[in-house]
Parts: sequence; C-alpha cells; structure tokens
Amino acid sequence: MIDLNSDLGESFGAYTIGMDDEVIKLVSSANIACGFHASDPVVMRRTVRMAAEAGIGIGAHPGFYDLMGFGRRNMNISPKEAYAYVTYQLGALSAFCKQQGVKIAHVKPHGALYNMAGKDFELALGICNAIYDFDQDIILLGLSGSKMIEAGEHTGLRCAREFFSDRAYEDDGSLRARTKEGAMIENENEAIDRVVRIIKEGKVRAYSGNDIELKIDSICVHGDNAHALDFVRIIRKRLSEEGIEIAPLSHIIHTS
Amino acid sequence: MIDLNSDLGESFGAYTIGMDDEVIKLVSSANIACGFHASDPVVMRRTVRMAAEAGIGIGAHPGFYDLMGFGRRNMNISPKEAYAYVTYQLGALSAFCKQQGVKIAHVKPHGALYNMAGKDFELALGICNAIYDFDQDIILLGLSGSKMIEAGEHTGLRCAREFFSDRAYEDDGSLRARTKEGAMIENENEAIDRVVRIIKEGKVRAYSGNDIELKIDSICVHGDNAHALDFVRIIRKRLSEEGIEIAPLSHIIHTS
Amino acid sequence: MIDLNSDLGESFGAYTIGMDDEVIKLVSSANIACGFHASDPVVMRRTVRMAAEAGIGIGAHPGFYDLMGFGRRNMNISPKEAYAYVTYQLGALSAFCKQQGVKIAHVKPHGALYNMAGKDFELALGICNAIYDFDQDIILLGLSGSKMIEAGEHTGLRCAREFFSDRAYEDDGSLRARTKEGAMIENENEAIDRVVRIIKEGKVRAYSGNDIELKIDSICVHGDNAHALDFVRIIRKRLSEEGIEIAPLSHIIHTS
Amino acid sequence: MIDLNSDLGESFGAYTIGMDDEVIKLVSSANIACGFHASDPVVMRRTVRMAAEAGIGIGAHPGFYDLMGFGRRNMNISPKEAYAYVTYQLGALSAFCKQQGVKIAHVKPHGALYNMAGKDFELALGICNAIYDFDQDIILLGLSGSKMIEAGEHTGLRCAREFFSDRAYEDDGSLRARTKEGAMIENENEAIDRVVRIIKEGKVRAYSGNDIELKIDSICVHGDNAHALDFVRIIRKRLSEEGIEIAPLSHIIHTS
Repeated sequence: MIDLNSDLGESFGAYTIGMDDEVIKLVSSANIACGFHASDPVVMRRTVRMAAEAGIGIGAHPGFYDLMGFGRRNMNISPKEAYAYVTYQLGALSAFCKQQGVKIAHVKPHGALYNMAGKDFELALGICNAIYDFDQDIILLGLSGSKMIEAGEHTGLRCAREFFSDRAYEDDGSLRARTKEGAMIENENEAIDRVVRIIKEGKVRAYSGNDIELKIDSICVHGDNAHALDFVRIIRKRLSEEGIEIAPLSHIIHTS
Repeated sequence: MIDLNSDLGESFGAYTIGMDDEVIKLVSSANIACGFHASDPVVMRRTVRMAAEAGIGIGAHPGFYDLMGFGRRNMNISPKEAYAYVTYQLGALSAFCKQQGVKIAHVKPHGALYNMAGKDFELALGICNAIYDFDQDIILLGLSGSKMIEAGEHTGLRCAREFFSDRAYEDDGSLRARTKEGAMIENENEAIDRVVRIIKEGKVRAYSGNDIELKIDSICVHGDNAHALDFVRIIRKRLSEEGIEIAPLSHIIHTS
Repeated sequence: MIDLNSDLGESFGAYTIGMDDEVIKLVSSANIACGFHASDPVVMRRTVRMAAEAGIGIGAHPGFYDLMGFGRRNMNISPKEAYAYVTYQLGALSAFCKQQGVKIAHVKPHGALYNMAGKDFELALGICNAIYDFDQDIILLGLSGSKMIEAGEHTGLRCAREFFSDRAYEDDGSLRARTKEGAMIENENEAIDRVVRIIKEGKVRAYSGNDIELKIDSICVHGDNAHALDFVRIIRKRLSEEGIEIAPLSHIIHTS
Repeated sequence: MIDLNSDLGESFGAYTIGMDDEVIKLVSSANIACGFHASDPVVMRRTVRMAAEAGIGIGAHPGFYDLMGFGRRNMNISPKEAYAYVTYQLGALSAFCKQQGVKIAHVKPHGALYNMAGKDFELALGICNAIYDFDQDIILLGLSGSKMIEAGEHTGLRCAREFFSDRAYEDDGSLRARTKEGAMIENENEAIDRVVRIIKEGKVRAYSGNDIELKIDSICVHGDNAHALDFVRIIRKRLSEEGIEIAPLSHIIHTS
C-alpha cells in the first residue's frame, strides 16, 4: 500500500499554475498551498472543495512568505517564526476544511522550507511543535532520513516518509544535490522501476551503486503539465499491475 | 451589563502600533487583527496569548488585504471574495486560539470592510455566511442598525451591536458622516454621558436634537495612545459609579 | 496612421500570463506592468529589453497595489496616493529603460485605476501631475472623452486616445457599461469594420444607432491567448489592405 | 572631513519608525528606504522632499523584498535577481528625486542584503552592476574591506567605506560577529574616541588588542530613538571640537 502525493492549489488571483482538475483524479493525497508561497483564499476554498469531493487526503503545504520566489528561496527565519508561520497557514487551511466537513490529514512543508527543515533540527522542531500544538493527529510528511522526520518523531507526531522517483540518492539516504552530476533520474522506466522496488523491497540503488534501505510511505508526483500527468498515469498503471494498492496516508500511517 | 471592545494586535514585524499591554487590562473584548490589514503570525500568537491570559473575550478582526492602507480604503471585492477572505483570517486566528485552549467568541470586521458591509447587504452576507459556516456559535459585532447586523440575523448568527461614544448619530440610527459638521462628539464629558444614557435608557440624542432608541451591547474604545487609555479609564470609573457591570459579549449575548 | 497598443510583462515570479513573445511582433506600443498589479523586477527587466529590441514604443502601465486582484478592483485611494504610486512605478520602469538606453514614451493606467480615473477628475489629476513632474514629454494614453484625458490636457501632457474594437459606445462617447446588454461587439468582422471606419472617418456607430465622432490615436489589442493573437493579425492585415500605417504613439502625437 | 550617514524613511502606511525630523538635521547623508524592506511611495516622496530641503546627500537604501522581516533576514536570491531588485528600487527612488530636482548620490544596501553582499562577491557584483548600468556617478557605500567594496571597485563605481562606532573589529578589518563576546562597544566615550581616532589616524584597536588600519569615509549613526539622537549630537560636538568637518559623500569621494 502506497500513497501518491502531489502539490495542489498553487494558482493565485489571475495567475494559474498546475492542472489540478486532472491530477486530483490520480493521487491519494493533496498538499494544498496556504497563501504564503502560493494560492489565495478563493483558490484555497475551491481546492479544498475539489479535494473533499474527490475523497483524497488533504494536507497543508505551508511555505515561506515569498510569493515572488514561490517559496523556493532559502530564508533565514527563526524556529519561533516558523512556529507562527506554520500555525497561521494550518489554521487558514483548516477553516476551509471545516466548512467542507473534512480535516487536515497531513502537513508537508513546501520548497525551501522543506529543504531547510530537512537539515536543521531546530527549524524543523519549530514546524513540528506548531503542528502538534494545533492537532496531534496530523501526520508529518517529509523526506526519509531527514532532520524534519527526526523532529517530528521527537515531538510525538506520526511521520510519513516520501520517495522522489526522479532523484538520485546518496549512501546515507539523502537526496543527491541537484548541482551534482547524475542528480536526476531522467529515464522514466528506470524511475518507475525504482518506485516499484522501493515499495516492494524497501531498497533503492544509490548513486554510488550501493543498495540502500529506505522506509517509504508516499511517492511525490507532479501535475504541472501534460507530460507530468502522463507519468503519474504510467506509475498508477504499473502499481496496479504489481498489485500495489494506492491509499491516502491516513490508511497507511496508523495511530500508535 | 455592557462590553468594552478594542482593536488589538495591530503591530507588524518591526512596526509597533497600539499600547496593547495597557488597553488589554481595561476592556472585556479584544478585536484581534488577522494579518490582512495589520499584524503578522508572530504578533497574532503573542496577542492571543495575552488576551487568553487576561481572560477577555477574543474576537477576530478581519480586514481588507491592504497593509499599506491599514484596511481603511474601500476595495471593491465580491461577496464570494469576502467569504473566502474572512474564512482565511478566521482560520488563521483560530489556530493560535486552539494552541492556547481558547475559542473565537466574536467577529468584528475592520475599517473599510466594516463600513462597506454596513451599507451593502450582499457583501455583509458573504462575511456572515463565512462566519456561520466556520462556527455557528460566533457572535457578530457590528453597527446598530447596519446592513451587517441585518445580514447576521438573516444568516442565523447571534449579533451584538456597538456604540461609538465619540460619534454623532442621525435620526435613523446611522452614524453621521465624518465629512459633515458635528460628526464627532469632542467633549469627553458629553461622550461619557451619552454612553451611560444609551446603556441605562437605550436612548441617545441624535444630531437633529431628537432622541432615538438604540439597542446596545458593546462600547468601542481605543488604545492607540495615552490619551485614549485615559478616556477608557474614565469610562470604566463612571460605569462603576453607575453600577453598570463590564462583561465580555459571551456573557451578554445568549444562545437563542 | 494608427498605433496598436497591448499590455505586456504581466507575468510574476513562477506565474506566467500572456504570449509576450508573439504579441510584441504585432503591436507598435507596449504597456508594461510595473510590479503593483502584476510583474516583478526580473520580468520588467526582460520585458523592457524585449520591447527595446523590437523597437516598439515603451509605456508604463501603472496599477493599483493589488496583485491578488490583478489591479481590477476599485480601490479608494486619494489623489495624493495616486501621485506617489504612479511616480514610484514610473521610476521603477524607467530604470530598466535607462539600462537599455530607451525612454518611457507613454503612460496608460491599468484596469480599475484606468476606469476610476476616467470618471474622477481629481484622481486623474493626481496621476497626470505625477507623470508631468517626472517627465513632461511622456504621452498620456487614455479613453477618448474621459476625465483622464481632460486632466492630462489640463496638466499640459500630450494625450493620445484609444479605441476599443470590441466595446459598444454610448452617444456621449463613453463605453457602454459591461453590465448592460450589447456592451460587447462579438462579431469580429464588425469589430474590424469599426476600427477601419474610426480611423478613416473618425466616426463610430453608437449603441443607440447614432453615428458619433471620436478622435482616435491608438487601438487596444490583447495577447492573452492564441485567439486574441489571431485577431491582432487580422486587424494588421486589414489595416495594411486599407493603406493605414501602424506606428508608435511618438510618431502620431507631436510636440505642440 | 567625514560623512555621517543614517537610515531614513522607514515608516510604512499607518506605521511609524524613526525620528526622521530630528536626525535629518544631524547627518550629511540619508539612506532612504525604497519600498522593499520598508517604506511606501507616500513616505518616499515625503522623505526625499525633506532630505532635498535639508540639502543633505540622498542615497538609495535597497533591501530584500521582506517587509515582515524588515529586510533583516538572509534570503537566497541570485545575482540576477539582486540586479533587478536593486534597479527597481533605484528607479523608484530616483523618480521622487527627479520631481524634487535632486539626484541619488549614493547607494547603501540594507540589512541582510548588506551583510550577505559583504561576503559574497557574485551577489555584490549583481548589485554593483545594477548601480553602474543605472548611473555610473553613484557612489557605493559599504563596509571597509568587504566583498561589496571589492565588487564596486571591480565594476568601476566610486566606493565609500563606513565605520561602525559601536562595533568591535577583527584583525582583518571585518566586524566581529554579533554572536561573539565583545562584539559591541557599549561604552559611549570609547565609541566616540574610536571615531575620532579612525578619522584622524586611520586606525582602530581591534578586538585582539592589535591596532589595524582602515580607510574611512563615513560614520553610520542611528535615529531610532531619543538616546540614539543624543549620541549623534555628542559625536557632532566632539568632531567640531576636533576640527573635523562633516560633509556629504559627494564632497569626500571625488571623480577619479
């Protein structure tokens, strides 16, 4: 059983990003932007309604307050600021959920916040404490082996680990830096084979050539363009052929 | 029994507005800015904690997304946008409340949104539906006789009416426009006498000289500067002398 | 001789709007967004360079500070604020022009600011004074018969008047409100015939059926999608067949 | 001869920071915020007018687009983004200068941008190229010995170096990190003695106890509160007693 997660609701005002209508049919969990790095209240309301109607898992996708940089630029915020920013975004999204009669199932920090918190325990702790103090039942979705997962467990949150089908891994389970050679898995068949293997065997071939073990609960997929959608369809077909069920995180991560 | 409400938590980043530490001791309800026309997540967290510790009623003070104009400039948003903007701000504030173990007791729209919704039933309905769909127990605080109160009652919200001690009223119960002569009650003794009379008799002398009847639940006071604080202290003293109890809206407005 | 103007450079960060690469080849003047209602500094730099290389007239397209509403929502700003906001945006755009060795030829206010200033002489005066005090040689591009043109002439600015091919006109030369029946000219052939006639005869058939006279210097066209681009191509072809030359405003509006 | 520079025009909308009316009488150069980390167009217009009337040197004080953090938080922007952001802010400020008949004399990056560019040559180059391409006559004001000054000289800009009276220096001329013991010079008399000595002898006692040489053109002073203003008055008095003239950068840094 595996979850497929994708970022949704990243449009803003007159600006449109993402083929939300299409990708929502293909995934089991949506990471919904909360108005800091992307989205606005009108978009959030529509996106939550769409996700609720599709019956998929709803997640908050909090990011840096940097719309101009789409939350992709590192910002040196304090753990205290991270706590407040995540709380604010969680609350805003939860209000639209409440109006639709659904709840926030998971939180996946966005972009540079995800990357920074993956390497900075104190920052990650600010995020995780905010989530825990808001709702202890929320699942933290992060990079396997990251400081964010470490902080999530330390805080007492249930944690889900995601796998990137198109990224190379180092021997220690970290993602190979994008600036390095071979960071991206460009061959789609190889990418899908890696997905199937990590689910079935819990193993992936690292960049070094060594096999490493990773515990995985979710696969991160994209819905930005027609090509990305096709790739999600191929993954789904292959998972089906392999007898692997797709399900939202709440079905995979159980209460301890 | 009467409520004293004041706007709180309007600081932003390095910028400070308001003597929150002082005014919080003098009022029974706080209207807390939610990050659109003023405030930021760090300020909201601190303000909610202060209000929770003081034990006063906590209200959301949603405004236009216009920090540069402090939410004081009319903006032509649709009822649908108003619904989404109010929901977003309510949710954001409620998250800080949840972390402190308190709830949002009331909503008072801010500035130009308050004024516009006071005259535009459809806009007011957008606001009131957002509140109702978020939490039916929240009290709407608005201008006596306004379209906003009309919309609140239409929606099914409990409504509280506020009185402005420093403003003249017209015969129909509306505020005399600031652009007109005699719009402001500048004599403080007169202002306080008007407060006492509206509470005790439910009447106020309109600009025309006629007495009009107004049902009043709350008095709007300010904490921007030392002079404003002194005025609140004088009101409190006078109310005490008159045997009028000060209490938050939840004690005044009962479930129907 | 007629100018074709189009809005350009409305993308923002990760968000793209408009087929700028295509429309820039088809028009003689670009109205370039300045970072308030749309665009950001990186987009502005690229857009100014593109327009400079294409050799078309460069115009500032200042709007309300309302990215979420794309500058399309009325905002109640003062003439003094309008003066400062237009100055700021003019200056920002002019810096990119200076780096490219070109100058701002015209200013066309955007969206709701255009509409409001078209009906409010004091607001329009705030805008026009800002332009005049910044550079007296800049041409104001506005709606024929509007308060904005009136204010421009009052200020001493050279004024250019634009024609909307897809909008019906009232007998007084104003645009028929979009909320009214028959506001849009939906038949493309009719629209193009109107363009040719207004250029050749200075006349257009109003909604009432009466012919009215309008002095016209520019036609407003769009580059949002493939269909809009096709329409611009058709206009260009027809103008060519009619022997009407297309030229930037600086060739049409002479120094008095 | 020495320049005294201070940050000015940092208010925003309803929010006030700084005692601009007072400090403007005490300094020879103003670093004026440009609407990214602080200020808005109305404030900029007023500040430029005040500085022009006072006859002091006008400088642009560009910062990160982070009003919530007052530009004090590191942001990972590219040199290309820095180029565009600085150009935008320079242009915006220059428009208000043009309306007042004055010119931008210098540029001093603000806060975290100042600090980052002081250590990152590529980022500093993005900033300096923007300034140079906008106006080669503008003076760059930066930290003595920093990468920013290095980039300024590389670009061909005239550079001015500033001294911080309240900060300790390391042997290599860099500022001692605020996180380290003894980073601040808390004794005011000592601070003023250091100012006089650096001007007269070009030397300062580093934290290590060694004397180091620094070439200095300007002293950075503050106008945030009454105490800061008093300190500026004391510096002025002492400089006068020592026969040291205070003059704007344009009198100190000559065209090569």
